[in-house]
Amino acid sequence: MHLLSMELNGEVRIGLTDEAQLYIIDLKKVHEAKGEESIWPSTLLEGIEIGEDFVHTVANLRDWVFTQRNSKDYFIPMKEVRLLAPIQRPRKNIFCVGKNYREHVLEMGTEEDIPEHIMIFTKAPTCVIGPDENIPLHEEVTCQLDYEGELAIVIGKAGKGIAKEDVMDYIFGYTIVNDVTARDLQKRHKQFFLGKSLDGTCPMGPVIVHKSAIDDPQSLEVKTLVNGEVRQIASTEQMIFTIPEIIATISKGMTLEPGDIIATGTPAGVGKGFNPPRFLTGGDVVEVCLEKIGTLKNRVK
Amino acid sequence: MHLLSMELNGEVRIGLTDEAQLYIIDLKKVHEAKGEESIWPSTLLEGIEIGEDFVHTVANLRDWVFTQRNSKDYFIPMKEVRLLAPIQRPRKNIFCVGKNYREHVLEMGTEEDIPEHIMIFTKAPTCVIGPDENIPLHEEVTCQLDYEGELAIVIGKAGKGIAKEDVMDYIFGYTIVNDVTARDLQKRHKQFFLGKSLDGTCPMGPVIVHKSAIDDPQSLEVKTLVNGEVRQIASTEQMIFTIPEIIATISKGMTLEPGDIIATGTPAGVGKGFNPPRFLTGGDVVEVCLEKIGTLKNRVK
Repeated sequence: MHLLSMELNGEVRIGLTDEAQLYIIDLKKVHEAKGEESIWPSTLLEGIEIGEDFVHTVANLRDWVFTQRNSKDYFIPMKEVRLLAPIQRPRKNIFCVGKNYREHVLEMGTEEDIPEHIMIFTKAPTCVIGPDENIPLHEEVTCQLDYEGELAIVIGKAGKGIAKEDVMDYIFGYTIVNDVTARDLQKRHKQFFLGKSLDGTCPMGPVIVHKSAIDDPQSLEVKTLVNGEVRQIASTEQMIFTIPEIIATISKGMTLEPGDIIATGTPAGVGKGFNPPRFLTGGDVVEVCLEKIGTLKNRVK
Repeated sequence: MHLLSMELNGEVRIGLTDEAQLYIIDLKKVHEAKGEESIWPSTLLEGIEIGEDFVHTVANLRDWVFTQRNSKDYFIPMKEVRLLAPIQRPRKNIFCVGKNYREHVLEMGTEEDIPEHIMIFTKAPTCVIGPDENIPLHEEVTCQLDYEGELAIVIGKAGKGIAKEDVMDYIFGYTIVNDVTARDLQKRHKQFFLGKSLDGTCPMGPVIVHKSAIDDPQSLEVKTLVNGEVRQIASTEQMIFTIPEIIATISKGMTLEPGDIIATGTPAGVGKGFNPPRFLTGGDVVEVCLEKIGTLKNRVK
């Protein structure tokens, strides 16, 4: 189940697609046509907040469409829609894990920087943009804008003190985040927040894949290309702190809520890791490809 | 103009009070009685998002009440209401300035730790609690829970790239925050976020004072008492980075929005600053007193 947010005739709609994005189903239209009495959520975030009932409803709507003789009437050509970030406006900052791939830590520093304990910082919700939206270069503020391709977890159920073995119950699904970073600000201000929160520096999407479609989130290929050149390529199995450890640690004493987004860290190959560094410049196209999820593509402008 | 959020007969209402909190006016009741046609905001946050029109409306309602012969009918005895955090659920994490008072930096470290550049970290919105609510001790997670009394700025108008001289245009008013911190988590996880975001560790209130009532926010006494003993006492003039510098720096490339809350840092006298340290324990009562704003009192439980 691949869910997305889209703009269709000036309205925000929830769409359903497949891994290849061969079709998009306008779920609201199906919901109306099927004569469902339940209230349809106006955003994907609201759907996620509904919980498992929403997932069942979507599955039923999909199955119903494929039994209809006119099923193609519910399909929308990709070119007619504008994809949005699946969660355009999170209800709090995005959680991010820092230094979660060994080789990335080494390209940024030394063996001593490999963390013993999880590092969590945040990105402001104002920095979220959708697929194909431009990442602003922010020339007046930074001259070291950098990419970070990452797998992100979307929480589906509120929880605190979540045990590692129960973590899957609290996950809704997965998406892709490009944790765009102003390296100079990140260094200058010590705490990462300012260097991580410039407007437009959190491209997200194109879809949220429901957890049922991914057997093992800890064995996905994550790959980042800049202008078609592979810069980052790794497997999520290389994470220092696994998804269960991340969720268990964050939720110790802090309540996680449906719609919370946790970016799980970036592998080696960021611009700053090269010698000389290869920061982003105007016109660059960054693609973050995540196995079983899709490709998040944005141009720097 | 001292605004607050309160629970009255199970409903959240916006209240108006004075510096001494001698009275509370139920603004919704006045709005209805005066026969205003405009829609009344359901929360103080929504009011702040309306902007200057909301401030004018509140001033008009207050003036109208005091011309009524039955003006006392609009007053509610303090004991009938439960005060809430003025903004119960911020739409993003609370911004916090770290290490913003010289003597506090020295009690926590050395001269070398005095920051050259502003440090900003965040607290999750799930940690906000109101006046008189209990701060959980979180014994299972931390044994170093500490208080930090702070002046907090509430943003009133969206802005990016705000110049220092224009900052007052973007401020709605001021409140008090106790930036309760788990020192062990703060240290262990390096980035401050986790040690700052345990549930219930952001007491806020009791009021938001509109900027018109405070001539100089940079010369207010800030004082924190634990069980009646003064632990922190300083003036906001001792901030290393002033309010204009804080807002100008954060808004460089990042859009600030109405309802954003910025805690401006804590002075010397935190529990960790004592030798031996004096962390919070069950039953402790923490009061943060801010000149011209009020007292924020919470018990640790």
